[in-house]
Order: sequence, then C-alpha cells, then structure tokens
Amino acid sequence: MASKESLRVDRYWATVRRSTMNPQPDDLVTNTQWDLLTGEPRGVDYLEVDADGVPALWAVPHGTAQDCPVLLCFHGGGYVSGSMFTHRKMFAHLAKAIGARALVIDYTLVFQGGVFPQPVVEGLTAYRWLLDQGVPAGRIMFAGDSAGGQLSVTVQLRARNEALPLPAAAMLISPWTDLEVIGESMDYNEGNDALFSKQWIKDMAAAFLNGCDPRDPDASPLHADLTGFGPMYIQVGDQELLLDDSRMLAKHAEQAGIDVQLDEFPGQQHSFQMAAGLAPEPDDAINRLAAWARPKLGLGVGE
Amino acid sequence: MASKESLRVDRYWATVRRSTMNPQPDDLVTNTQWDLLTGEPRGVDYLEVDADGVPALWAVPHGTAQDCPVLLCFHGGGYVSGSMFTHRKMFAHLAKAIGARALVIDYTLVFQGGVFPQPVVEGLTAYRWLLDQGVPAGRIMFAGDSAGGQLSVTVQLRARNEALPLPAAAMLISPWTDLEVIGESMDYNEGNDALFSKQWIKDMAAAFLNGCDPRDPDASPLHADLTGFGPMYIQVGDQELLLDDSRMLAKHAEQAGIDVQLDEFPGQQHSFQMAAGLAPEPDDAINRLAAWARPKLGLGVGE
Repeated sequence: MASKESLRVDRYWATVRRSTMNPQPDDLVTNTQWDLLTGEPRGVDYLEVDADGVPALWAVPHGTAQDCPVLLCFHGGGYVSGSMFTHRKMFAHLAKAIGARALVIDYTLVFQGGVFPQPVVEGLTAYRWLLDQGVPAGRIMFAGDSAGGQLSVTVQLRARNEALPLPAAAMLISPWTDLEVIGESMDYNEGNDALFSKQWIKDMAAAFLNGCDPRDPDASPLHADLTGFGPMYIQVGDQELLLDDSRMLAKHAEQAGIDVQLDEFPGQQHSFQMAAGLAPEPDDAINRLAAWARPKLGLGVGE
Repeated sequence: MASKESLRVDRYWATVRRSTMNPQPDDLVTNTQWDLLTGEPRGVDYLEVDADGVPALWAVPHGTAQDCPVLLCFHGGGYVSGSMFTHRKMFAHLAKAIGARALVIDYTLVFQGGVFPQPVVEGLTAYRWLLDQGVPAGRIMFAGDSAGGQLSVTVQLRARNEALPLPAAAMLISPWTDLEVIGESMDYNEGNDALFSKQWIKDMAAAFLNGCDPRDPDASPLHADLTGFGPMYIQVGDQELLLDDSRMLAKHAEQAGIDVQLDEFPGQQHSFQMAAGLAPEPDDAINRLAAWARPKLGLGVGE
C-alpha cells in the first residue's frame, strides 16, 4: 500500500488535473510550483550555466570532484510544462545518492515553439557541450522523467546518427514512449491515475508532434532502433496510464539486446520520485537508481 | 489599487491562515512552500555554506565580483517557520538588483528550541563569520522581513555590545518590532490583513520570548537604544496588522538620530516583496530598496 507520505503526489496531481480542467490563470498551485513536491536535498549547490545556448542548471553535491560522473537530466512535463527549476531538487537527490553532478537542462516548450524535433536537438546540444567540456561519454548517464524519459532515448538516437559516443546508461522515470497513445493501461488505469486522461495525453502528443508521424523512429522510442544503447533502468508506478509505455519500452529494448531493468512500484503515481526527501517510496526508488548506476559509472557499490 | 498579480500574496496568506486554523499535517500549501510566491530571479547561483555552525545559503548573482558588497539576510516567519530556502529567491532578487551577494542564514526555530536569544546569537555568529572572511562592515548591509526585520535590528544591538563594527545600513521589510503587540493597526487593520490575527501574533511573541520581558531592550527594537546605527529603510504594506510596527520603529529610530526612510505601499500585504518577479508592486519595492542601498555600499546609482 502506498505510504501516507507518498499520497502527496496523488493530491498534487489531482490539483493539477482540476486546474487544467478549469484553469485559473493565477492559481497558486500550478505546474510552475511542481517542485513543492520535493524535499530539499541539502548539501547541494546550484549553478546556472549556458550549455552552448541551452539554459541549464548544475546541481553539485558537496564533496563531488570536478571530474566526477555527470547525469544529463531531462525534466518531464509533456513538453508543455516543467523546467530545470521544477526538477532541480529531484535530480539533485539522484545525483547526491550516486555521487555525481547533475546538469538539468531547459529545453523549449511547445507553447514557446518547441515542437518536435527542437527539444531533442537542444538535448543533443547540451550533450555535445558536455563532451566538449572533456567529460567522457562513459562518465555520462542520461536521466529523465515522463517526456524527459522520452528525451533520454531520442537524444541518444540523434547522437548515434551524428556518430557521437553514447552515454554509459540511462535512467528513465515513468517515461512517455508511446506517441500513438495505444497502451492498454490507458484504459485499465483510468480512475487510478491521479493526473492524466487519455485525451490529454493524445492532445500533448499531437501538440508536440505538430504533424509528424507518431511512429517516426526519430520521435518514438518504441519504433526506434535501439541497437548499441547502454543499459537502461526504467521505473514506473502501477497506477499510471503510462504503465504500458514502460512495459512496451522494456520489451522493445530487450528485443534489441539492451540490458534493461523494469521496476513497477505498487500504488504509486506518475513520476512519484518527485516526492524524494518526503516519502519512503521515492527515497527507495532513488536509492535503487543510485545502486544500479554507481558501478556503471565506475563508482564503488557503497558511498 | 493592488495589481491583480500582487493578489497572489493575499491568496497565499489566506491559505496559510486557513491551514493554521484547521491544520492538515500534510497540506501541500504550507509555510515550507512559501517560496512558491516568488519568481525565479535567474542568473543567480546558490551555494550552501556553514557559517561557523550556522547553516547558510549564498545567493551569487552572475557577474558579481568576489569582493562585492554582501547582504546578510534574515528570513521571516515569526520564528516558527521559513528557512533560507523559502526566502532564497526573494533575497536573490534584492541582491541581483543591488549587484551584491546575499548570505541567507537559517537560524533555529522555536519548535527546534530556538527561543530568544538564540536566533539573535546565531545571527551574530554569521555576521562575525562574514567579518572574519574579510568582508568589511561597511560593505555589509542587513536585510530581513518580518521576524527577520526584527533580527536586522537585534543582531546589530548584540554586535554593538560586543564592540563589533556595525553594518553599513539595514533594509527592513514588514519588520516585526512590537513584542507587546500594542500597535493600533492590530485593531484597525483587522479584516484587511490576509494573514494575521492579533492573538496569533501574541502567541508567537510569547513562544519566542519564552518568559522574557517584551520590553527587554535586547529583544525589542522599540525599546532598544539605536544610537550609532547606520541608515534604515523600512517598507510595509498598509493592509498589515504590523503597519504600526513599522511606523513606531521609524519614529523610534528618528528620535535616536538615525537616517530612516519609511515607505508604505497602498493595498499591499505583509512581506508582499515575496512576490518579486511576478507582480509590479514587489518589483517596484525591490528596485526602490536597491536604489537606496547602492550608494551606501559604494556602488554607482545605475547598473
């Protein structure tokens, strides 16, 4: 059963859902305050940086060396919301648990003109900037939630197309992978998902794709050739409309010979890791991600 | 008339007031999310630091030099709430407008045992730490809102007692100065103040004073000898129960020969500057503070 503390995610999503159905332009609780879900990790510095034109935020846990591994982080929000600020704390929790630094990027949102493929291109720009800073690809791991989970795959596709080395691995939190919106969980988890409706996801897909084919292998992780990708760890809540997005991606990756792990968290909602620092399930999830990531980044198993 | 945008402060305070009357332990909108009132200033780095045992956060606007002036900032919250995180953005707006760095400190709250004089002692520790870092007193300005405005005075009293040089000046935002809670605005602004009730302020004063006399000159700015203090700029909203706290302090400081300026903002609530970046009145207030502060810190009038 979900912990009492983790229900803050359910309540927050219900609020977002309500405010989306009946928008109050100046409603205090909106996506821009999404970060209120997350506890302060403490012991982390935040530095704004320009990654070759892409705004980004370094989250630097105290005690990490200049040459420590780097998480390149893509925030969620359906390409219509979220920012490096809404997600700074969640990715900082993850970076701190791993002993890495996180670079959280701001890509252009749909209402700012950021339709496919612009966010993917901007993600690649930030990745290339990291490589140009002298960070070896093998010391870089991608991480993303929801639409950011999608970018964790599609930016790799674009990097491979441009003959760049691929990152060591990728951590996907409730990734959005199915742009056709055909997963069965869209139906059987209706009423369980505190945030989404199927129609809303369809609308976001249409807005992002802007006429592009939802089966385009450059846009859709489920139709992409994943050959050569590093290991992949997917976490998802079993209450999500997007549950099948994770299951389908895990299956697709396995068929491509990728080392893939899928963890489904009972009773949990979309991107419940956002409650890190304030509830046991997200803290457990972050710790599992860190334990999985550390050896792949050349770090010891313990702290 | 208050701008539509600045009404977010009224609504937020009304929510805090409701949740205080009828506490929901896991209510999403609580004082710990106070910072949702404030826009991201952008172009500011945030570095956690230990100021001789006092947790603190540097807000470093891009482009400020290592030896630029420093704001020592005391957050509000009636000594029972708030933190360096809830107020980081508001003080960063101020620091950025001035061209200074801000050191926002965390003092011990009442429920953590932080009754008078502990927060004052911790404020002094942070001030001494700044001086020990080589920052001249004349390059330091105190800034604080509400209880933090009180600390902006009482920490100076304690510094003077210990024969430390005093800071260049102090900026007080809706300062809480009257621990007897006898201001007339406590009555005539009842119904205008979105946040406070008189009884609540009395309860906070009793909790903080913990048996100490509310007229103790070490605790109460209104009963302290302010001789030798630098210039003081007070801002207050005219809807506040604490309006007279500002007027009485201004009068008291004037009688002590202090260069004091008092600005009352029509239609505005307690600490409305927290909506900086999102509403015109707080932005105007921040700009007025900066224009006042810059020449006193040896900075030019313009940017």
